[in-house]
Amino acid sequence: MVVKMKVDLKQAVDFFKTNDNFTLICHANPDGDTLGSGYGLCGVLHIMGKRARVICDDEVSPRFDFLPEAIDKSKVELIEGQNETAVTVDVADIELIGSLKDKYPEIDFCIDHHISNKYYAAKTLIDTNAAACAEVVWALIKGLGVEVTPAISSAIYTGVSTDTGCFTYSNTTVDSHLIAAELMVSGFNVAKINYLMFEMKTRERIKLETSALDGIEYFFDDRCAVITLTADMLNGIDPEDASNISVLPKQIQGVEVGVVIKEKIKEKLPKIIGEKTWKISIRTSENVNAQTICASLGGGGHIRAAGCSLKGSVDAVKHAVLNQIEKSLN
Amino acid sequence: MVVKMKVDLKQAVDFFKTNDNFTLICHANPDGDTLGSGYGLCGVLHIMGKRARVICDDEVSPRFDFLPEAIDKSKVELIEGQNETAVTVDVADIELIGSLKDKYPEIDFCIDHHISNKYYAAKTLIDTNAAACAEVVWALIKGLGVEVTPAISSAIYTGVSTDTGCFTYSNTTVDSHLIAAELMVSGFNVAKINYLMFEMKTRERIKLETSALDGIEYFFDDRCAVITLTADMLNGIDPEDASNISVLPKQIQGVEVGVVIKEKIKEKLPKIIGEKTWKISIRTSENVNAQTICASLGGGGHIRAAGCSLKGSVDAVKHAVLNQIEKSLN
Repeated sequence: MVVKMKVDLKQAVDFFKTNDNFTLICHANPDGDTLGSGYGLCGVLHIMGKRARVICDDEVSPRFDFLPEAIDKSKVELIEGQNETAVTVDVADIELIGSLKDKYPEIDFCIDHHISNKYYAAKTLIDTNAAACAEVVWALIKGLGVEVTPAISSAIYTGVSTDTGCFTYSNTTVDSHLIAAELMVSGFNVAKINYLMFEMKTRERIKLETSALDGIEYFFDDRCAVITLTADMLNGIDPEDASNISVLPKQIQGVEVGVVIKEKIKEKLPKIIGEKTWKISIRTSENVNAQTICASLGGGGHIRAAGCSLKGSVDAVKHAVLNQIEKSLN
Repeated sequence: MVVKMKVDLKQAVDFFKTNDNFTLICHANPDGDTLGSGYGLCGVLHIMGKRARVICDDEVSPRFDFLPEAIDKSKVELIEGQNETAVTVDVADIELIGSLKDKYPEIDFCIDHHISNKYYAAKTLIDTNAAACAEVVWALIKGLGVEVTPAISSAIYTGVSTDTGCFTYSNTTVDSHLIAAELMVSGFNVAKINYLMFEMKTRERIKLETSALDGIEYFFDDRCAVITLTADMLNGIDPEDASNISVLPKQIQGVEVGVVIKEKIKEKLPKIIGEKTWKISIRTSENVNAQTICASLGGGGHIRAAGCSLKGSVDAVKHAVLNQIEKSLN
């Protein structure tokens, strides 16, 4: 059995210098941090003359189409017969790589920033103070002493900017800004990346957002706002277009608890006569604990953002959720 | 007559060290940069033992209610009988201070970053490469050698983050991030400020946005999207809630020209039977010039964001605008 160990930057540098044939594995439902970390590191390994590729169990949004510019496509084919080095990026738990776990049950190296990391890899380079995995990857790249291209910088930047909500979230640190400054020195189109990550919306997303906000309901002296997304509203909508709706009700001035109640579409498909399932997402302001509310409904999460699943009619589910929220507001 | 001159940082430091009784003047329609610059510098002058106050011709949005925490309220009354030192912050042209120009026709010192600065002040400290006036103020504060409070840092940060769209716009520089990093060292609630500046929306704003997006129209193979805001839609809406709607159509995937046609309410008040006036805002992607489109309609602006005013029926105005856009798209 392989001993699992946490490694420091020097040991990590040695690992990447001495190995080859890297498969960099992103987590399923890939976001800007896992993909930016993967493509940024892959590009650096190519500059070092290594063979490396980035893989992910799920389809990647076309938003991220620019990321492969960071790599050298002539070096993505691994050398046959040579050992493959499996590396995960931004993956706290091996379960999060989805079905790739079947092919890669043993991970050689993990680069991460999640405090919840399960230390499943033989070696783990982790900085739980980092706002993004890409910040840890950037420290590694500097340790490797590789001069990066603008495309590699933009991949690392994508990781940092997406995981910090473009430097707006409370996880943003002094280092996040210092790293952004270092990356920008190489000269890439920051405005273009931020447009793709934060501004660009599809027409379907606009429609969904409009109908969601049209039906918003307020409770408890407007301290709580609830958006309900039924299967009918979500019909034909790309899951990516439906993501992140959970932030909307909490943005409204005076709202302390923002709730999104979203019908689970998959469970509707078999058309079994029975209860519907709803995914509840709750966001709270400083004086309300989202975790407590969701824990009392069988869910969990963080203090300001938590979730749970409930079965039943939309009215029954809403009633149950509002009951718990009322307790937290009092 | 006073000789107008551009000064360097050392001369600026001397000016603020040797003078007292400062009135810091913000531009009308105040934004985060002029207010953050004003309150940040005012707080520093108070720490230096000077008398100083911040004034503005227009009402300040409650969003900015936290900014006066940067100053020492016991030092805002000027010393009677002593010369007043008039300083403008983020004001490119004296006309932009509104009716305050009557009381302050002569400005002693101007701190700015606009390339369009008119050099109306006796002395001007300017850095046209700075993304925000607050970046120039920060250089001055470092020159003055004053150790800032978290509240002062947060005021300067507000200037930088609002003028760069929280580090997303193309004006964002390496220095913008380095300054943000320096400011964050003093420890203030970055997430709270960014919530107030970028996320928080009033219910009225949500309603306006929803009805605006509901009525969006697409032209030229969906390369152009048009939102029309009539006086009826804007009735009872706070102007701040109606601001910035101009960015919405351009956010839609594939849209190269985003247009907002907004009825001017003031002109409607006298209920004169006659033509309505419309304010047209145009935002474009990299391959279309907004300035050219608006110039051909008697307006002006920048390459990616420009505007003009037109009189007539909404259909006639829309037709005129679309005609010019069609030429630019071909």
